[in-house]
Amino acid sequence: MTQPNATGTLFVTGVGPGDPELMTLKSVRVIQQSAVVASFCKRGRPGHARSIALAHVGSNGSGQSREIRFEYPFTVEVDVGNPRYLAEMGNFYEACAAELAACLAQGDDVALLCEGDPFFYGSAMYLFDRLRSEFRTEIIPGITGMSGAWSRAASPMVHGDDVLTVLPGTLPEDELVARLQTSEACVIMKLGRNLPKIRAALARAGVAERAIYVERGTMAEEIIVPIVALDRSPAPYFALVLVPGRQGAR
Amino acid sequence: MTQPNATGTLFVTGVGPGDPELMTLKSVRVIQQSAVVASFCKRGRPGHARSIALAHVGSNGSGQSREIRFEYPFTVEVDVGNPRYLAEMGNFYEACAAELAACLAQGDDVALLCEGDPFFYGSAMYLFDRLRSEFRTEIIPGITGMSGAWSRAASPMVHGDDVLTVLPGTLPEDELVARLQTSEACVIMKLGRNLPKIRAALARAGVAERAIYVERGTMAEEIIVPIVALDRSPAPYFALVLVPGRQGAR
Repeated sequence: MTQPNATGTLFVTGVGPGDPELMTLKSVRVIQQSAVVASFCKRGRPGHARSIALAHVGSNGSGQSREIRFEYPFTVEVDVGNPRYLAEMGNFYEACAAELAACLAQGDDVALLCEGDPFFYGSAMYLFDRLRSEFRTEIIPGITGMSGAWSRAASPMVHGDDVLTVLPGTLPEDELVARLQTSEACVIMKLGRNLPKIRAALARAGVAERAIYVERGTMAEEIIVPIVALDRSPAPYFALVLVPGRQGAR
Repeated sequence: MTQPNATGTLFVTGVGPGDPELMTLKSVRVIQQSAVVASFCKRGRPGHARSIALAHVGSNGSGQSREIRFEYPFTVEVDVGNPRYLAEMGNFYEACAAELAACLAQGDDVALLCEGDPFFYGSAMYLFDRLRSEFRTEIIPGITGMSGAWSRAASPMVHGDDVLTVLPGTLPEDELVARLQTSEACVIMKLGRNLPKIRAALARAGVAERAIYVERGTMAEEIIVPIVALDRSPAPYFALVLVPGRQGAR
């Protein structure tokens, strides 16, 4: 709030799980009003967040918005545990932040698009962390992938005193088992190549029978099946598994 | 899908955490198109979900929508552990479901409004559970109260391999302590009269210094303060505490 008025605002903008109609009124307004619309994408791909928001990008009544695409240097080719991953991703986020800083410094508002909800495992946090001390920022929450998934699966997740645990599928199998056994409801994110390990953990924890696999939830190509009926591996990175909590009407 | 076409559809519709601009495009459309708009409220109060959606209720282009208000028989006067609570709430939900069933049976679509996200601790699940076998249903996810809270607190919650645990504040203090100690990030819901116990648990778990209290997040009257600076008790039932996960740019 101490910045000169001449600088722009960074709107870190959740666009929801996939169905464009699950964008909020606020995200639509901010995207339409921002001079710059930025988004992440895999190399050579349109970018998932941008695809969701497409109808509102550039439809700016006050003139054409400028688009910036940030291509990840890699996605699954380099393992997260590899020191090269951390170093190159750090350099990548630094370069992205510098590019947005230049826009903000000259007074342009920036909408940085983010699939799902920005502060829930979103890459946009790495740019927010780098820019927040220098520029005005505002976070616009989005529908998470897990909310989209359990809504489409028609699967009530948590009632009353249920505990919900959100687990990255990258955790060791023993830790997944322990946490699945001690939480009424769980969501496992980041499936990808972790799927066989996750299936083993679900079986060991005794919850495989009620676990639901959801791929591309809320999108035209969505797949929703009991995990015991799933006949594929690996899964897309953005697929997830739902283990609903206690059921039954009270 | 086997119901005759003459019956209506039950749209269980999340309206988000409080800021009406955080409603989704889909929730707005469904509310505008439904013949009946139903919502829960405390006795003699307008109802929070309805207040959020107010601009879109009855603005139906195809005629006036009918409103149904379900007044909870009690909110905090009877303890959840009291057998009277379970019995009377069960009767209440039965009566609500019967009223909606009558609307659906005569062919009216019903939008049942729900603060936040319907399948995330929402009362609407108790009606969905009672009506799903007889009528077409669709769940429209909403921005959760916790997403609204961490966005307004400008507090990134979970990165990379962080585990997020969502804890009802109704849990025993020892269980809160154990879970706070074994999860990078936590959200504690349902504060109310549980606040003193929750503060004690945060201190015992060694996370009080980074815990943030959020009351009425995304609304005009919102309060966001470090829990160690909070000077009140009890808290409103819909206040929550955020314990953000690992921080710092990579």
